[in-house]
Amino acid sequence: DLPFALIAGPCQLETREHALQIAEALATACARLGIPFIFKASFDKANRTSLNAPRGPGLAAGLEILAALRDRIGCPVLTDVHEPAQCAPVAEVADILQIPAFLCRQTDLLLAAGRSGRAVQVKKGQFLAPGDMAHVAAKIASTGNDRILLCERGASFGYNMLVSDMRALPIMAETGWPVVFDATHSVQFPGGAGGASGGDRRFVAPLARAALAVGCAALFIETHPDPESAPSDGPNMVPLDQMPALLARLKEYDRLTKGAV
Amino acid sequence: DLPFALIAGPCQLETREHALQIAEALATACARLGIPFIFKASFDKANRTSLNAPRGPGLAAGLEILAALRDRIGCPVLTDVHEPAQCAPVAEVADILQIPAFLCRQTDLLLAAGRSGRAVQVKKGQFLAPGDMAHVAAKIASTGNDRILLCERGASFGYNMLVSDMRALPIMAETGWPVVFDATHSVQFPGGAGGASGGDRRFVAPLARAALAVGCAALFIETHPDPESAPSDGPNMVPLDQMPALLARLKEYDRLTKGAV
Amino acid sequence: DLPFALIAGPCQLETREHALQIAEALATACARLGIPFIFKASFDKANRTSLNAPRGPGLAAGLEILAALRDRIGCPVLTDVHEPAQCAPVAEVADILQIPAFLCRQTDLLLAAGRSGRAVQVKKGQFLAPGDMAHVAAKIASTGNDRILLCERGASFGYNMLVSDMRALPIMAETGWPVVFDATHSVQFPGGAGGASGGDRRFVAPLARAALAVGCAALFIETHPDPESAPSDGPNMVPLDQMPALLARLKEYDRLTKGAV
Amino acid sequence: DLPFALIAGPCQLETREHALQIAEALATACARLGIPFIFKASFDKANRTSLNAPRGPGLAAGLEILAALRDRIGCPVLTDVHEPAQCAPVAEVADILQIPAFLCRQTDLLLAAGRSGRAVQVKKGQFLAPGDMAHVAAKIASTGNDRILLCERGASFGYNMLVSDMRALPIMAETGWPVVFDATHSVQFPGGAGGASGGDRRFVAPLARAALAVGCAALFIETHPDPESAPSDGPNMVPLDQMPALLARLKEYDRLTKGAV
Repeated sequence: DLPFALIAGPCQLETREHALQIAEALATACARLGIPFIFKASFDKANRTSLNAPRGPGLAAGLEILAALRDRIGCPVLTDVHEPAQCAPVAEVADILQIPAFLCRQTDLLLAAGRSGRAVQVKKGQFLAPGDMAHVAAKIASTGNDRILLCERGASFGYNMLVSDMRALPIMAETGWPVVFDATHSVQFPGGAGGASGGDRRFVAPLARAALAVGCAALFIETHPDPESAPSDGPNMVPLDQMPALLARLKEYDRLTKGAV
Repeated sequence: DLPFALIAGPCQLETREHALQIAEALATACARLGIPFIFKASFDKANRTSLNAPRGPGLAAGLEILAALRDRIGCPVLTDVHEPAQCAPVAEVADILQIPAFLCRQTDLLLAAGRSGRAVQVKKGQFLAPGDMAHVAAKIASTGNDRILLCERGASFGYNMLVSDMRALPIMAETGWPVVFDATHSVQFPGGAGGASGGDRRFVAPLARAALAVGCAALFIETHPDPESAPSDGPNMVPLDQMPALLARLKEYDRLTKGAV
Repeated sequence: DLPFALIAGPCQLETREHALQIAEALATACARLGIPFIFKASFDKANRTSLNAPRGPGLAAGLEILAALRDRIGCPVLTDVHEPAQCAPVAEVADILQIPAFLCRQTDLLLAAGRSGRAVQVKKGQFLAPGDMAHVAAKIASTGNDRILLCERGASFGYNMLVSDMRALPIMAETGWPVVFDATHSVQFPGGAGGASGGDRRFVAPLARAALAVGCAALFIETHPDPESAPSDGPNMVPLDQMPALLARLKEYDRLTKGAV
Repeated sequence: DLPFALIAGPCQLETREHALQIAEALATACARLGIPFIFKASFDKANRTSLNAPRGPGLAAGLEILAALRDRIGCPVLTDVHEPAQCAPVAEVADILQIPAFLCRQTDLLLAAGRSGRAVQVKKGQFLAPGDMAHVAAKIASTGNDRILLCERGASFGYNMLVSDMRALPIMAETGWPVVFDATHSVQFPGGAGGASGGDRRFVAPLARAALAVGCAALFIETHPDPESAPSDGPNMVPLDQMPALLARLKEYDRLTKGAV
């Protein structure tokens, strides 16, 4: 009966002001719509295509920004972890620890995240069948953690291209864990822009609508006040000023799907 | 402003009574919902996996059934053509000639169908990028025919598996022709059942909802009073008695999408 | 103990002189190497990406060229058929009837080709698992025809890209029929050049070596004196003057593989 | 002019005796054939499908076995690293640090491995286009390390299936770094056996021949005295007693390819 939750923010943290500006805009829009809002940003993009691409402020500075934002805006925050040792310090600030797609099979990272006491969201690897996420979730659940989110973000489809298989949502839901659809990375063209990933943001809205029509617990959407100047994932981020209208529209699909259950 | 049209029927024609039973049930359900209904059935399954699989009644007997049904029910009918020479006789009965996916690049068939004076629906080949359907449509349009339908039915995804790329709907819509989503063949596992194709009808409803949320002009759904006994595509056909509830539900998604345009 | 056979020629027939020039050069090179040579060319490219692309001289004129070439050079010839009715006239001239990949599941065409009394080569559909070719071969064999060739030419891999799965060769060989590797179309980028298919001929030689190392009965290679001016498949054709050296090299791999059996 | 190098061993370390038995057999076979031999085994399978699957002896015990083996057999050893902090201790024993496929984009791990002073082999991610490995190699090379190996191990092809694109070998070779073909993991069916990965060892030999026919610097083959009892990758490992004959055969293809360059 709840509307979908929104996990949103810029791809990577830039400055504190930048993060606050985005979080404030999203929190306001979500409050108006009754959509639970979780701020998302990465302190370290640990797997950029190219060595020279900006990675973000790093763990300490990043957590400081997230903590400030959490205080100021009052919303839960989600951020990625890349190594088991990051889980404990990140868990002091973040409400949800996110396991990146490439790392979704790293047992130690899953266990450390599970043991952190925080909720854990796992992105499904581009190389993984949806049914195989049951094994991934079981690793986390073995720690006693029962707040697990499974996130679809596209499957490898030839080279430099992903495809969103909407069947993945009900298949992953069979695990009993809430399923999230990442409408931003699903429209990525990995490595498709030479030394960086390309993407096509025109498909964010239709794929998000499709996911809500199929049924999912939350949406993950990256946004930026000026995507063209973003240090990563610019081509597939939604401009911040388009988010309120998009969310209002998406809520209708969610209500239709969930009203009928 | 119109709701989506429904192209539906059994995969292949069996008897006249069987066809009438299905058409009547669908026509009634669609009339109640204000959904334009086009009856679909094949007189010849010309590309079965196995030689010994039943193919249907053939051209002459099949057209007789379709003509009777058209008279009795008053609905337009759609059926497949496999060779240029079939287009003229089929066009005497059928309102829409359908080009099967494997044949979507056969220039002579496309031209003959275009010249028949009837509307032409082309299934997108499992091997084709959505943008390449513009060239397919241009072949038909070169005959002066301006009633063309482009139909998504899944793309090859490894062996014995298809995936529905929802981006294909808006990409094909850029041609200006109406786009149809085939929710039945999209959930096929081609050759996945040994000497026959398998499938999973559980995904028909969610994928149809997704397609309407993305936006399409029509849905294509195969149905049968007793799918388990159907001579083809049984595993992915919707039981006939479930169609009215499914259609009522689907109409809500369509209204949401088109109300907003 | 025989070396591989070579099926080679231009993609489509241009003029009689052009065909003779190519056939002569290939026959000479093959004779020198003890490689059985079959001339290949299409009289009609029935499934070009774009309507405006040249299709070839047509059935009557094409068969005339093939007959002349067969007389003059003394080599067997292979050409495509696209409809059942073409099989009988084509069989009067061609030694091998080829079923194009998109048509590999069309039962009537397979049966008509089987009944023609000529050998039949079927290209594996880009959408087909290698094991499913057993059903395709069974359709032809049901006519009593026992000269069947199964040809690998790449599997759909995302959009506008094929991949050569070398496992397909031994899997298809389990049927007992000779297996052919098409090194030309395997390196095609279907629709990858906008209104035409692209390709990358740099990979013809390595993939042909790989196929012979895995083991196959014949190679299929398209060639042209001036690929850049060819009406189709130019980007993936081998320049004619490079064929003798390529064949000499390929023969060594074949000998290595077959010497050990 | 050198023959290919062989990187081989069991998938994961079991006991010291077990490792020595395998290394001895392989070293003897390779010495006879003049093939440089590098022993490979993992001390920790950090990304098993299922939590309950055995992972190996761990870092300390594993390095002890590898050190003993290196002393006794005199061959270089290769083992995986999963986190930056493992690189320094592993580099005290291992001659080559291997970056697993799922981790091939983790910048910190690549840099730590590069700085270790040891050679670094990177498996190409199942989700990566071959050309994108240039960026991966550049990360390692930025540390001043100039002993980099790039390894093909199959690309995602639908769900639970990989395909070996032989074009990847020359494409990766354009970087200038030696290219390795992993014939064992290329025939894996990831997650294809429910809670574990399946595979089909029948294709190891043909794909290895194909890779040498295309051209590569080294082969990677996992082997076990009794694959059925192996704790991981059993279905795709070659029985140890079949290795000498396989290597002798493979050497012929390598000689043919490199003799001609």
